[in-house]
Amino acid sequence: MKYPLTPDVKPEFCTTGTFMRLPSQKHDAKLAIVGMPFDTAASFRVGARFAPQAIRQSSMTLFPYHPIHNVYPFEQMNAIDIGDIPVIPHNIHRSYELMKESIHELMSKGVIPIGLGGDHSVTLASLRAAAKVYGPVAMIHFDSHTDTWDTYYEEKYWHGSPFIRAHEEGLLQADKVFQIGIRGTLNHSGDLQASLDLGYRLITTGELSNRGFEDVLKEIRKTIGNTPCFLTFDIDFVDPSFAPGTGTPEIGGFSSYDTLKMIRSLTEFNFIGYDVVEVLPSYDPSQITSLLAATLVHEFASLAALGAKEDN
Amino acid sequence: MKYPLTPDVKPEFCTTGTFMRLPSQKHDAKLAIVGMPFDTAASFRVGARFAPQAIRQSSMTLFPYHPIHNVYPFEQMNAIDIGDIPVIPHNIHRSYELMKESIHELMSKGVIPIGLGGDHSVTLASLRAAAKVYGPVAMIHFDSHTDTWDTYYEEKYWHGSPFIRAHEEGLLQADKVFQIGIRGTLNHSGDLQASLDLGYRLITTGELSNRGFEDVLKEIRKTIGNTPCFLTFDIDFVDPSFAPGTGTPEIGGFSSYDTLKMIRSLTEFNFIGYDVVEVLPSYDPSQITSLLAATLVHEFASLAALGAKEDN
Amino acid sequence: MKYPLTPDVKPEFCTTGTFMRLPSQKHDAKLAIVGMPFDTAASFRVGARFAPQAIRQSSMTLFPYHPIHNVYPFEQMNAIDIGDIPVIPHNIHRSYELMKESIHELMSKGVIPIGLGGDHSVTLASLRAAAKVYGPVAMIHFDSHTDTWDTYYEEKYWHGSPFIRAHEEGLLQADKVFQIGIRGTLNHSGDLQASLDLGYRLITTGELSNRGFEDVLKEIRKTIGNTPCFLTFDIDFVDPSFAPGTGTPEIGGFSSYDTLKMIRSLTEFNFIGYDVVEVLPSYDPSQITSLLAATLVHEFASLAALGAKEDN
Amino acid sequence: MKYPLTPDVKPEFCTTGTFMRLPSQKHDAKLAIVGMPFDTAASFRVGARFAPQAIRQSSMTLFPYHPIHNVYPFEQMNAIDIGDIPVIPHNIHRSYELMKESIHELMSKGVIPIGLGGDHSVTLASLRAAAKVYGPVAMIHFDSHTDTWDTYYEEKYWHGSPFIRAHEEGLLQADKVFQIGIRGTLNHSGDLQASLDLGYRLITTGELSNRGFEDVLKEIRKTIGNTPCFLTFDIDFVDPSFAPGTGTPEIGGFSSYDTLKMIRSLTEFNFIGYDVVEVLPSYDPSQITSLLAATLVHEFASLAALGAKEDN
Amino acid sequence: MKYPLTPDVKPEFCTTGTFMRLPSQKHDAKLAIVGMPFDTAASFRVGARFAPQAIRQSSMTLFPYHPIHNVYPFEQMNAIDIGDIPVIPHNIHRSYELMKESIHELMSKGVIPIGLGGDHSVTLASLRAAAKVYGPVAMIHFDSHTDTWDTYYEEKYWHGSPFIRAHEEGLLQADKVFQIGIRGTLNHSGDLQASLDLGYRLITTGELSNRGFEDVLKEIRKTIGNTPCFLTFDIDFVDPSFAPGTGTPEIGGFSSYDTLKMIRSLTEFNFIGYDVVEVLPSYDPSQITSLLAATLVHEFASLAALGAKEDN
Amino acid sequence: MKYPLTPDVKPEFCTTGTFMRLPSQKHDAKLAIVGMPFDTAASFRVGARFAPQAIRQSSMTLFPYHPIHNVYPFEQMNAIDIGDIPVIPHNIHRSYELMKESIHELMSKGVIPIGLGGDHSVTLASLRAAAKVYGPVAMIHFDSHTDTWDTYYEEKYWHGSPFIRAHEEGLLQADKVFQIGIRGTLNHSGDLQASLDLGYRLITTGELSNRGFEDVLKEIRKTIGNTPCFLTFDIDFVDPSFAPGTGTPEIGGFSSYDTLKMIRSLTEFNFIGYDVVEVLPSYDPSQITSLLAATLVHEFASLAALGAKEDN
Repeated sequence: MKYPLTPDVKPEFCTTGTFMRLPSQKHDAKLAIVGMPFDTAASFRVGARFAPQAIRQSSMTLFPYHPIHNVYPFEQMNAIDIGDIPVIPHNIHRSYELMKESIHELMSKGVIPIGLGGDHSVTLASLRAAAKVYGPVAMIHFDSHTDTWDTYYEEKYWHGSPFIRAHEEGLLQADKVFQIGIRGTLNHSGDLQASLDLGYRLITTGELSNRGFEDVLKEIRKTIGNTPCFLTFDIDFVDPSFAPGTGTPEIGGFSSYDTLKMIRSLTEFNFIGYDVVEVLPSYDPSQITSLLAATLVHEFASLAALGAKEDN
Repeated sequence: MKYPLTPDVKPEFCTTGTFMRLPSQKHDAKLAIVGMPFDTAASFRVGARFAPQAIRQSSMTLFPYHPIHNVYPFEQMNAIDIGDIPVIPHNIHRSYELMKESIHELMSKGVIPIGLGGDHSVTLASLRAAAKVYGPVAMIHFDSHTDTWDTYYEEKYWHGSPFIRAHEEGLLQADKVFQIGIRGTLNHSGDLQASLDLGYRLITTGELSNRGFEDVLKEIRKTIGNTPCFLTFDIDFVDPSFAPGTGTPEIGGFSSYDTLKMIRSLTEFNFIGYDVVEVLPSYDPSQITSLLAATLVHEFASLAALGAKEDN
Repeated sequence: MKYPLTPDVKPEFCTTGTFMRLPSQKHDAKLAIVGMPFDTAASFRVGARFAPQAIRQSSMTLFPYHPIHNVYPFEQMNAIDIGDIPVIPHNIHRSYELMKESIHELMSKGVIPIGLGGDHSVTLASLRAAAKVYGPVAMIHFDSHTDTWDTYYEEKYWHGSPFIRAHEEGLLQADKVFQIGIRGTLNHSGDLQASLDLGYRLITTGELSNRGFEDVLKEIRKTIGNTPCFLTFDIDFVDPSFAPGTGTPEIGGFSSYDTLKMIRSLTEFNFIGYDVVEVLPSYDPSQITSLLAATLVHEFASLAALGAKEDN
Repeated sequence: MKYPLTPDVKPEFCTTGTFMRLPSQKHDAKLAIVGMPFDTAASFRVGARFAPQAIRQSSMTLFPYHPIHNVYPFEQMNAIDIGDIPVIPHNIHRSYELMKESIHELMSKGVIPIGLGGDHSVTLASLRAAAKVYGPVAMIHFDSHTDTWDTYYEEKYWHGSPFIRAHEEGLLQADKVFQIGIRGTLNHSGDLQASLDLGYRLITTGELSNRGFEDVLKEIRKTIGNTPCFLTFDIDFVDPSFAPGTGTPEIGGFSSYDTLKMIRSLTEFNFIGYDVVEVLPSYDPSQITSLLAATLVHEFASLAALGAKEDN
Repeated sequence: MKYPLTPDVKPEFCTTGTFMRLPSQKHDAKLAIVGMPFDTAASFRVGARFAPQAIRQSSMTLFPYHPIHNVYPFEQMNAIDIGDIPVIPHNIHRSYELMKESIHELMSKGVIPIGLGGDHSVTLASLRAAAKVYGPVAMIHFDSHTDTWDTYYEEKYWHGSPFIRAHEEGLLQADKVFQIGIRGTLNHSGDLQASLDLGYRLITTGELSNRGFEDVLKEIRKTIGNTPCFLTFDIDFVDPSFAPGTGTPEIGGFSSYDTLKMIRSLTEFNFIGYDVVEVLPSYDPSQITSLLAATLVHEFASLAALGAKEDN
Repeated sequence: MKYPLTPDVKPEFCTTGTFMRLPSQKHDAKLAIVGMPFDTAASFRVGARFAPQAIRQSSMTLFPYHPIHNVYPFEQMNAIDIGDIPVIPHNIHRSYELMKESIHELMSKGVIPIGLGGDHSVTLASLRAAAKVYGPVAMIHFDSHTDTWDTYYEEKYWHGSPFIRAHEEGLLQADKVFQIGIRGTLNHSGDLQASLDLGYRLITTGELSNRGFEDVLKEIRKTIGNTPCFLTFDIDFVDPSFAPGTGTPEIGGFSSYDTLKMIRSLTEFNFIGYDVVEVLPSYDPSQITSLLAATLVHEFASLAALGAKEDN
């Protein structure tokens, strides 16, 4: 049977519990969906542990073919959905370890993971795995927040700190990190400087809007080139109107149309992993946030399929 | 690995897409969960096609052991969840055929199915399968409606008619059919008589309340005895307060506590199949209806496990 | 064409905008549904102006025949739905006048109105109309609150005061007023005494539960006898579980089953009008409150039809 | 009384059950609102049968005058709302026949219908009526999907196929069909080719965004000219953020502002009918989707009124 | 302790009931948040009385620093939240009086109020206070409606009339009033003329979109200059997609991003008060409307802080 | 000013952010409401950190006087609401310490706390405080679960273990602990035995229903007598119909009416503290769960006031 199951084979409402009804294992898989249902590190609204499930459900209306990139990403990549990593709520360190191990196992076999968060701290686990396989990596980070705050009541590990921790642990090539879409009020006037001090390039919503993404993209391409790169997408990059179901929404973001255009232009990078995080189903009554996230997963998979083609 | 997966093995929010994370196949299974996501035959609100998925999700908080019956039903029965039957929306006959085949395949191997509807017309498919294996069967039917109306705008097959059709097709032993919980307004003064004319025993909410279920149960036991019997449960048997997510709610029903007591007393029957139908997730914002349905599935499985014990 | 339109004639989801798709006028009508979308007198949550619309929508699943009373109430009474009285939000007095006139016009022709509130102050308008036609009337009042507070920030007319105002205006036979279901916290220890001082009989949830409604009913029958009587039903009489959509819910109420039993036993009274008030659609996501209200309207109509039969 | 009833005459929350409280019949009507509550042909989420009711409710806040086109469309056209066509759920062919007859009866008297769907297959019924009166017609089709898939599990009639069926039945002038707003993933790489093979002009979201609607409009005008033309609007043309309540939402669509601009520029066509389809109230908690649909109906009526003026 | 309490001091979910956990009084306050929970003057949906509470809750995720204006507005202004003015539902005049007094008390001490409505009629109370202190003021008014209708069923005071009443009472410098964002259907062709007749400058969504806000802003600056000016923001200025929770939404509005840009450019005005009105929590399930309102309050405070800096 | 503020003084919708608008401090307070917004120890649904806020909001419709106990509990006890303890999400131990300290500070001054959870693990903090002041205490525990599981993935501290931990720490007089309302499926057949092994008395829903609470109460009274006793109430004791907003609902529970009767009969105990836990606002769209919780707080306060009277 060809995968993902298409509506030809089984009506869309017949679930199997996996993303687009992918198989959970397959010989020679090059792409894997990975549920990362950890949300203990969130500081405000919690419940992103139910996001992987919601994103998979919303994936049921997606079709296999990407008409703009001209790929069947899941088929071409022999994609699988390995299910949810059994994280332990309220045990941050053990959960990170479990996630790191799963991601590492995939990456070490050359499988590209697409993580379904979870709060944004799950990306730290992925970066630990990535660094073990690839050394320090580049990162393109879509978000309304930099997530480079230090401690939260003396806690070092929370969803506001993954990218300061990643830096300290040497997981990133700091000069090849782009944080895109930053906006909103801040705790202190120096908050954004924290990112700059780490060596990251920070592009606010204002700058992005003024320059246009094409111009920004040139800068990113020139800087990152072919360096192994992780793409992390916090759903609150998008305006709350398009993504109401999230933990710390920030008004004044981009539309889903703008977002798709940006993501679709990210060809010719050497992405070694992706994730979409901070989807919160209990604030998403019409399920448009999880549909957006599911569509982004399809986009990421298409970028991966394009990359695989180029390699051949 | 022992099944169902318990929270010991994997946190409850880590889905696998099956009921209580049962495996989808297993050697020597004696019990099978079967998704029957068909809702085209509904006359008012539609969308019960999403019920199997919602019930499975709500099953995640259930634990394996039933303390009152002292059974681990899913483990003892080697239970599986075969997923959703790929019914065809707006093709009633082909969908019934697909459902009948799946159920028949299970029953003919001695596996007891627990169907997750779907509108109530899915039960007709199950009864067709049952009659093929067991001949005409007895039936205990919990519902606020008799579902013995004849045609709906000349349509013979819809969710108000399964039990007149089943009678015509000779699938039931009419004198061993109990319809319990009937209440609400009627189209014509003769509507209830239709059931009586078929030979069914009809017990209204009023009679049930006055006599008490124990007394009613004696009558049922005496009548049905050890005849192969199908148990069908329309969630609108319960009051809308306990089951708001349903297509044609009827106020003035029993509580979930009363319901559990009734179901738990149905030991020593020879049930050859069960279903729970008419759950409608889009009217169930707090998911209490799907939790009720999931709990009933656990209860049915426990009755099955008790029955299996007795057989040995 | 016979009315109300039944699902035989037109599927239930085909609206006409009236209660059970009744005609808006008819020769020789003896019963009229009347929308009273006034909610300005509410002190806490507002929005009951949308209740008549919601109750009508929920009425679509009701059928014409009442199997316990053996009546087709709407057909037997030539019932009509005259639509919504065009009340003026924030003009209490003019709105009362408009409502009084509409109700009076009906009553003076011998038509029995069933009002769909609106906040509870709409009953004052109905009582004014009733008194003009029948002189001071008896009243059976289901509610968790007595609504006999005096002023609210010096305002005399609000939804907490209709039954002190009605008393002052001489609209009620005080010794023939029963307030049933009273419960909950109070502003002052003397609050309930206010009702008693007016001469009303006050029956708390506790007393009702202890004595049983049959016993209470005997007392009511003996007291009211054949006096023209108004039945007013505040939906918060019922527990919030059964009626979440209301403005000032009070936990610890009766079930919808208990409620139906009580209402069904109110035969042989001389009811000259009914209403159901304080339904609040914006807090009723599953529409079970409006269904409860619609079912009560059917019950009231059935009582009216029974009364009409007795008269002949 | 002038129609539609304005808030001058009756407060907006006083319903009559029709669109903007139009009368249900009127001498010399030239425009008619028509409820088409059929949703059995939907393949995923169902429930659009409740859309006509929801759109009518949301129409209550609209006012009669269109300030940009300077028309009072409903008054000028003597508009009526004929209510819901009593379609038969799960009988596709009979339902199409009923809808075709109603639409035909209007069109044959020169009345312009504005259909309120229902799933998109209801447009097939309208096109059958149109072709009978006008011969094959032109069509402007706003949608994220082409709806030119062929069969769905061997079913020829479903909401993904109306425009291949219409072509086969000779209802359309294929070279005068514009499908605008197409986007999203596809089942097969050849899916869009299917439309092109039929001779339709397909304009994706990308093309529309790049060229601008003004440029596209020139092409449409040149091609269609004065040919009798049907305008069909699937609400999923708009981004899910603006229209969350729909059956198969597709992210990356246009805003409601863009949409209004496009629709308002469609003057000087010879529209012989309009519809708005695929609104799904159960996924529209804030009722913004039904408000968008109601506003579009006002826009369509305004285009019709402008057209009528031009004729004189 | 420094105020507002930041997440450093207390986690965001620990409420105190005030906006951003400001103190309720403070020596030398120059800015005050003021709850104006009055909604009786609304003509359609009601319930904005719960908006101040909802906006305060959503304010919990805001941080103190505004990175674009480089201010800590609440700290610099010694801001306080004086709580809700105890308005009297259904007593319009007394409520206006209470609100006027509170606002006047603040303004007369040089404190700038930011009002949290309530329906739009609360602005009349603020303007009365302002005129008493400053004489007739200029006004910048963001809204989809002009709110210059005259009477509503002979009622002069309602949420559609504040700016005709303000004019009659001499509270405004008519030639320095800008109404921005007007759109949607109208009751009569002359409706917009009513504003022009008063001498107001009316800028429709179309004009604003065509000219761009920068160009409009020049005109506003030139006209208003340093005149004491009130800024009133009806949340329905923004498209319903971004602000679903409001009483009379109007599709085709601006995005939250556009809105922020406009508001941020309003520097160098002499604002003596602000408000944000018509937020309706019961239609705002994901709380994005109240978050938008809370963010606007932060923006207004930042403008005030900038203004205060300039003064020194 | 007398406290709590009653609707006489300020309309109910005018918030102050405290329970029933109590002051946050007061000389000679004997009762204190304490927010305990900790939910990191929950194993399934999370978000109870927002419960204190939601319960306070729902408290606005409560009135001061308890008519059955004839007390004004908050006034008589000089009650205060000290706000939310600033717990640290994802730091269980530090959070317990912070909560313990706050509760201890109150108890050591003879103030009776009523805790608003939070997940059920917050009770461990209260018991630590209690034991420090009173030595090991008795406990009456309403719940559907025993919360005496040991570890959760080797974690000792989670919301399923507080009462095994409390036992190990010597905080309870084990023979004076009653766990009431236990029901539902279990992980292992020995799960309930765990409680019995600790020496607790466990009363299932079945036993409670069969014996009646009066009989159970006699046993409790006899056992506990005048021992200092803590009352902890998990909202899932009540059926999900009455309390849909909770983390691990269990069908088949008691009604709110039954619950009130039980709580009201708990006079003459020596309660030194109370709490209500596991309210989850994001699953409580109609706010009936938080209203139930708020009402229980009023009941607890009334028991406290009665106790204080007895002492004098």
